[in-house]
Amino acid sequence: MRLEMMTSAAVERYLGDCPGLIVPVGATEQHGPDALIGTDHLCAEAIARRCGREHDILVAPTLAYGMSQFHLGFPGTMSLRPSTLTAVALDLICSLAATGFTRIYFFNGHGGNVAPIRCAVQEYYAARSMAGAATPTPVHCRLKSWWEMPGADALRRELYGAQEGYHATPSEVAVTLAACPDAIAPFNRPPPAVSTGDILMHAGDNYYDAADFRRRYPDGRVISHSALATREAGDRLIALASADLAVDFRAFCGAE
Amino acid sequence: MRLEMMTSAAVERYLGDCPGLIVPVGATEQHGPDALIGTDHLCAEAIARRCGREHDILVAPTLAYGMSQFHLGFPGTMSLRPSTLTAVALDLICSLAATGFTRIYFFNGHGGNVAPIRCAVQEYYAARSMAGAATPTPVHCRLKSWWEMPGADALRRELYGAQEGYHATPSEVAVTLAACPDAIAPFNRPPPAVSTGDILMHAGDNYYDAADFRRRYPDGRVISHSALATREAGDRLIALASADLAVDFRAFCGAE
Amino acid sequence: MRLEMMTSAAVERYLGDCPGLIVPVGATEQHGPDALIGTDHLCAEAIARRCGREHDILVAPTLAYGMSQFHLGFPGTMSLRPSTLTAVALDLICSLAATGFTRIYFFNGHGGNVAPIRCAVQEYYAARSMAGAATPTPVHCRLKSWWEMPGADALRRELYGAQEGYHATPSEVAVTLAACPDAIAPFNRPPPAVSTGDILMHAGDNYYDAADFRRRYPDGRVISHSALATREAGDRLIALASADLAVDFRAFCGAE
Amino acid sequence: MRLEMMTSAAVERYLGDCPGLIVPVGATEQHGPDALIGTDHLCAEAIARRCGREHDILVAPTLAYGMSQFHLGFPGTMSLRPSTLTAVALDLICSLAATGFTRIYFFNGHGGNVAPIRCAVQEYYAARSMAGAATPTPVHCRLKSWWEMPGADALRRELYGAQEGYHATPSEVAVTLAACPDAIAPFNRPPPAVSTGDILMHAGDNYYDAADFRRRYPDGRVISHSALATREAGDRLIALASADLAVDFRAFCGAE
Amino acid sequence: MRLEMMTSAAVERYLGDCPGLIVPVGATEQHGPDALIGTDHLCAEAIARRCGREHDILVAPTLAYGMSQFHLGFPGTMSLRPSTLTAVALDLICSLAATGFTRIYFFNGHGGNVAPIRCAVQEYYAARSMAGAATPTPVHCRLKSWWEMPGADALRRELYGAQEGYHATPSEVAVTLAACPDAIAPFNRPPPAVSTGDILMHAGDNYYDAADFRRRYPDGRVISHSALATREAGDRLIALASADLAVDFRAFCGAE
Amino acid sequence: MRLEMMTSAAVERYLGDCPGLIVPVGATEQHGPDALIGTDHLCAEAIARRCGREHDILVAPTLAYGMSQFHLGFPGTMSLRPSTLTAVALDLICSLAATGFTRIYFFNGHGGNVAPIRCAVQEYYAARSMAGAATPTPVHCRLKSWWEMPGADALRRELYGAQEGYHATPSEVAVTLAACPDAIAPFNRPPPAVSTGDILMHAGDNYYDAADFRRRYPDGRVISHSALATREAGDRLIALASADLAVDFRAFCGAE
Repeated sequence: MRLEMMTSAAVERYLGDCPGLIVPVGATEQHGPDALIGTDHLCAEAIARRCGREHDILVAPTLAYGMSQFHLGFPGTMSLRPSTLTAVALDLICSLAATGFTRIYFFNGHGGNVAPIRCAVQEYYAARSMAGAATPTPVHCRLKSWWEMPGADALRRELYGAQEGYHATPSEVAVTLAACPDAIAPFNRPPPAVSTGDILMHAGDNYYDAADFRRRYPDGRVISHSALATREAGDRLIALASADLAVDFRAFCGAE
Repeated sequence: MRLEMMTSAAVERYLGDCPGLIVPVGATEQHGPDALIGTDHLCAEAIARRCGREHDILVAPTLAYGMSQFHLGFPGTMSLRPSTLTAVALDLICSLAATGFTRIYFFNGHGGNVAPIRCAVQEYYAARSMAGAATPTPVHCRLKSWWEMPGADALRRELYGAQEGYHATPSEVAVTLAACPDAIAPFNRPPPAVSTGDILMHAGDNYYDAADFRRRYPDGRVISHSALATREAGDRLIALASADLAVDFRAFCGAE
Repeated sequence: MRLEMMTSAAVERYLGDCPGLIVPVGATEQHGPDALIGTDHLCAEAIARRCGREHDILVAPTLAYGMSQFHLGFPGTMSLRPSTLTAVALDLICSLAATGFTRIYFFNGHGGNVAPIRCAVQEYYAARSMAGAATPTPVHCRLKSWWEMPGADALRRELYGAQEGYHATPSEVAVTLAACPDAIAPFNRPPPAVSTGDILMHAGDNYYDAADFRRRYPDGRVISHSALATREAGDRLIALASADLAVDFRAFCGAE
Repeated sequence: MRLEMMTSAAVERYLGDCPGLIVPVGATEQHGPDALIGTDHLCAEAIARRCGREHDILVAPTLAYGMSQFHLGFPGTMSLRPSTLTAVALDLICSLAATGFTRIYFFNGHGGNVAPIRCAVQEYYAARSMAGAATPTPVHCRLKSWWEMPGADALRRELYGAQEGYHATPSEVAVTLAACPDAIAPFNRPPPAVSTGDILMHAGDNYYDAADFRRRYPDGRVISHSALATREAGDRLIALASADLAVDFRAFCGAE
Repeated sequence: MRLEMMTSAAVERYLGDCPGLIVPVGATEQHGPDALIGTDHLCAEAIARRCGREHDILVAPTLAYGMSQFHLGFPGTMSLRPSTLTAVALDLICSLAATGFTRIYFFNGHGGNVAPIRCAVQEYYAARSMAGAATPTPVHCRLKSWWEMPGADALRRELYGAQEGYHATPSEVAVTLAACPDAIAPFNRPPPAVSTGDILMHAGDNYYDAADFRRRYPDGRVISHSALATREAGDRLIALASADLAVDFRAFCGAE
Repeated sequence: MRLEMMTSAAVERYLGDCPGLIVPVGATEQHGPDALIGTDHLCAEAIARRCGREHDILVAPTLAYGMSQFHLGFPGTMSLRPSTLTAVALDLICSLAATGFTRIYFFNGHGGNVAPIRCAVQEYYAARSMAGAATPTPVHCRLKSWWEMPGADALRRELYGAQEGYHATPSEVAVTLAACPDAIAPFNRPPPAVSTGDILMHAGDNYYDAADFRRRYPDGRVISHSALATREAGDRLIALASADLAVDFRAFCGAE
């Protein structure tokens, strides 16, 4: 059930049964020599729509732009600032709350989005808490990334181990191969990325600026072997993640 | 040529030939009893992608969320504040400028987006002008809505005249019928909207708040007869608008 | 009736009869070789005050500063950023709403102000709409520029045709000649502007940055023949515009 | 020399002789039972323009709106938020710096403006200091209120003593009587204000919110006897203040 | 009574007796050749905590960072922008108001903090006033710097006269000598500062940018003779200031 | 080495040897029936200062206020909004970068601070990346919480297991018992918290608003048994965490 393909009256009926929806968020950023610039939002979108279709869950339009400043050394990257992504997520929460939704599930495809969206959720609550609101708002938010879905997470570890890496990973490439079968040319699959930035990642510093990133990771991937991706793996990842997403979404909607 | 379906290296090659791209922007808002919540972004997207495909023009991912505060009286509407949309557009301009683009063409599907995006463009220039920059930036921006494309504009006037109205117009509904053939149920086409808000529109006041809008326009349409829309008209509108868009985009890229 | 020349008690009495007022907004920016830096706010002010005087309409102090970033290549220009002008207009709306006004008519003298003020109006409503307000606010806003007043618009087209141009136009110069008879030296009237920026204007791109503007329009005017202005034409323009403004203001105040 | 009455070329010539200008700032707020809503900006404007005229000093258009939140309990008050006034002053500083001015003298008529304008000046410098700029900017700013001019300050103390009070003071009313001779009705001059808010003022807490202000100071004046004002005193105050302003401005422009 | 050393239940009991608390605010900035970078917050903290301890007044954790942009030419300075300090103070006010406090006393140790904190207080009230709130909020704020306490002010004038200067003054150094007896090395006490920036200070312009400050005041002090400071003077200043603070705080809490 | 206890000249010498410093950040928020409101900043401060003292590492003043909106249902909590904390951290980064630091290590004591500080770091880099900076900035940032230090993390798991819980944990209470031996009354140690919000925490939703938190966790603790804390455990935790912090800081400073 794609929100953009429905009328407002149909959404009103849906709200009679279920107070929540899924909002896919991703990014538009370089993904190395063989993977798609849209990988992050295409993954979140493919899984969320599959989940919505099979489980009658409402799915909002995908937010295709995320916080990708470290990739701005590569053409094709289009990034929001953290504060802008926070503002966008906050406005979507306010809009949904104003129109009757009380369970908002952000389904994410890009690590750089996590902090800004968490800030948006807290900013929403802070406005109430600082005003001294005496009763809890019924509006709850959850943010999960697709690779946190248990089945998909287990599979990607099993399939790729250390070659999964951190950016332009074989698992996300696999999902796009399954979601957009003709988009990635089969003859253009590179060897594993060799990079000089390992220490940085292990310390969890989340990269520095765009020039720094390009210097450390000259082919755009971060310690990943993207060419291991297959369409078959992508099909399995989508199926597993969308099933787990449905379960987690239902639990979220049902929880007090 | 969809940016999200390319690699960064391919975008780099494109930039060798052409300094510009098209960024479709729309909205996610109620469109009356029979039309789709995604109408505004689906229209901009369908025309821009057709144009990109036929004319080898780069098209960025669609920004599906716009400034739709007046529609927040109807479930399914998800709006950005004006200042948020301005921030988004400004970040996209900065990202594109940082990665080598000098012609940015926002192709719009929603009237409420015009002022915020214009502000973003001026904010971008104001930062330079207030810093006393001595040389012009080569980055130029253009903002056009699809119904400003001359051929499509003439056709919608010819087909619908005064029944075109202002929101959930038969022309935009026609475009979505062509772009998403199965989305609108044929048995659910209402008579023309009857509303009490005419004076407001004629004075160009662009609606007031959401409760006011719902009171004035209870079925969500503004003086339009959406049921006049046909898929055939949509096909013609898309063809005309995408052809004009290509011409205007090329002129924009070629101009000093 | 100039607000700044009244006491608060007198304003309170006025509010018993009429819920609205006019707020003139302009700019402080270069206007080419012979016209005044204050042209835009002097025009809005002269027409609004004439209207207020003759029709007992309350007129607020003129906001003399507007969004003029493209003119910052010429000394004497003092510009606000778009976001700043939006904040100013929003605060004025909030102030007036808090003190009992429900009809706020921004009367504008500068094209660059339109988008930021429109954003302010929408930001005001968005705050209510996103909070889910169930009842409409009675506060309505209108924004019109003086050259949109029908009589004045017809006259400037009749008098100047294509020589009206886009900036430092003979019609606005005429209004300042009438409003400030001694301000413009009669011996300093230049030939028509010759510029290289025509294409830009026709595409509606609203100029780029200040260095770009100065390069394209080296004498500061945009395709206008400012020397055609006469004090007599200015008198007529003021009279026509102020009469139309009164009519439009009364309709605005009377409309539901 | 009023900036708004000059051409850009004339400003450029002025800059050859003098690097500075005066920017009058005031407020639009209730001033009790007999004084004008525009008192604060009319005072700053009258003194600054007299100074500019007699001493060939450039005077920018008056910023008529200031930070007056505590007066919003009385109709006719139109206030900016502190952050908005800061943004306005910052943009004016940036504009003037970008176009060649290095001495910016804010001449103020309202106590509530002091903190926001000081913040703007520091924000301007903070941007440079936080960027690690190695050389000082030549742009200097000064902020003075008209009652700080030594001669005028001495006179108002001599004339009114404790009856000067804090808001709608006889000295500012006198200035407006001189500047706008016909604006204040002679038959409407009230006895001294009686208020319950004395303690607050003596502690320098600068009032609280609008409802609180109206409760403490029901006739709008703060411990002042506005009816003591005379046009003659106003003439003397303007003359003294404008002479001192010229001296201080010249010293400011000449200082390293 | 230090807030950070209490439980929430204890604070709740305190609120039954007293509606107010003291929030010490300072800065982290260079203080010349012999004084501590923390001087400003150490002074405010020492006096406030002494006051709290002796008079059973609640004291919040010290805000150690303030608005110190002009000192960024010297390593060790860590400054907030004015707008950031305003945001911090506003959030603290909102937090305290939401949890039952109605008297908030900012006790300050740095001149550069005054304008931003004043703006925060006014911003807090402006939100209410612009919303048209009909009843006064009971929340009151006061901002005082320690050198405004009458006894301490008299003593520093008596002890140091003109050698007190404006930054890294002997009185504040004395307070830190008393508060942190081992922190300042006795063998490192310099002769009085010689500087070229006198005119600036006398005009009240509050310095310009960091590079300018370092050029004018190369040893970091502003016309002060810091080496006159003694621990004994510091002990007396702390005792006097904390006693006066208690009196002013009690008056503030008791006032309507 | 506490920055606030040094002169600027001493900091300059330190920078000759080491490019980095530690900035402790915490919170001021309720911590249940027996623990201190300052727990989060007292823990970060105690460990960072011990580390600084023993390893000659520079430690900045503690930021005692953090993002604690969910605790605003309990008096004594003083929170920043997420956006405010982001602004503070960004200004501190800019200040340190402007004065020569290139390694900034935020040492955190409160989970709610993570997202806002991460946003600050990314906002800092985004400004460079969006400006198209061609060379990497040498400024690097790291954010770690004290319970992520490996030795301390292992010990708290060993000592408390599931009774550690999520807020007002025995391990943080132990640290404050060691750091402030007299602050927590021995007779006031409660039984384990009983709460109804378990599901929420396990889903990682990070609480909702303040009223909701108080309803779910009425005694302020989240599934923790704070009374298990001992001063001895606190001593060991501090020792372990400060040793690991020194190692991680040195690695951070030494890494490219």
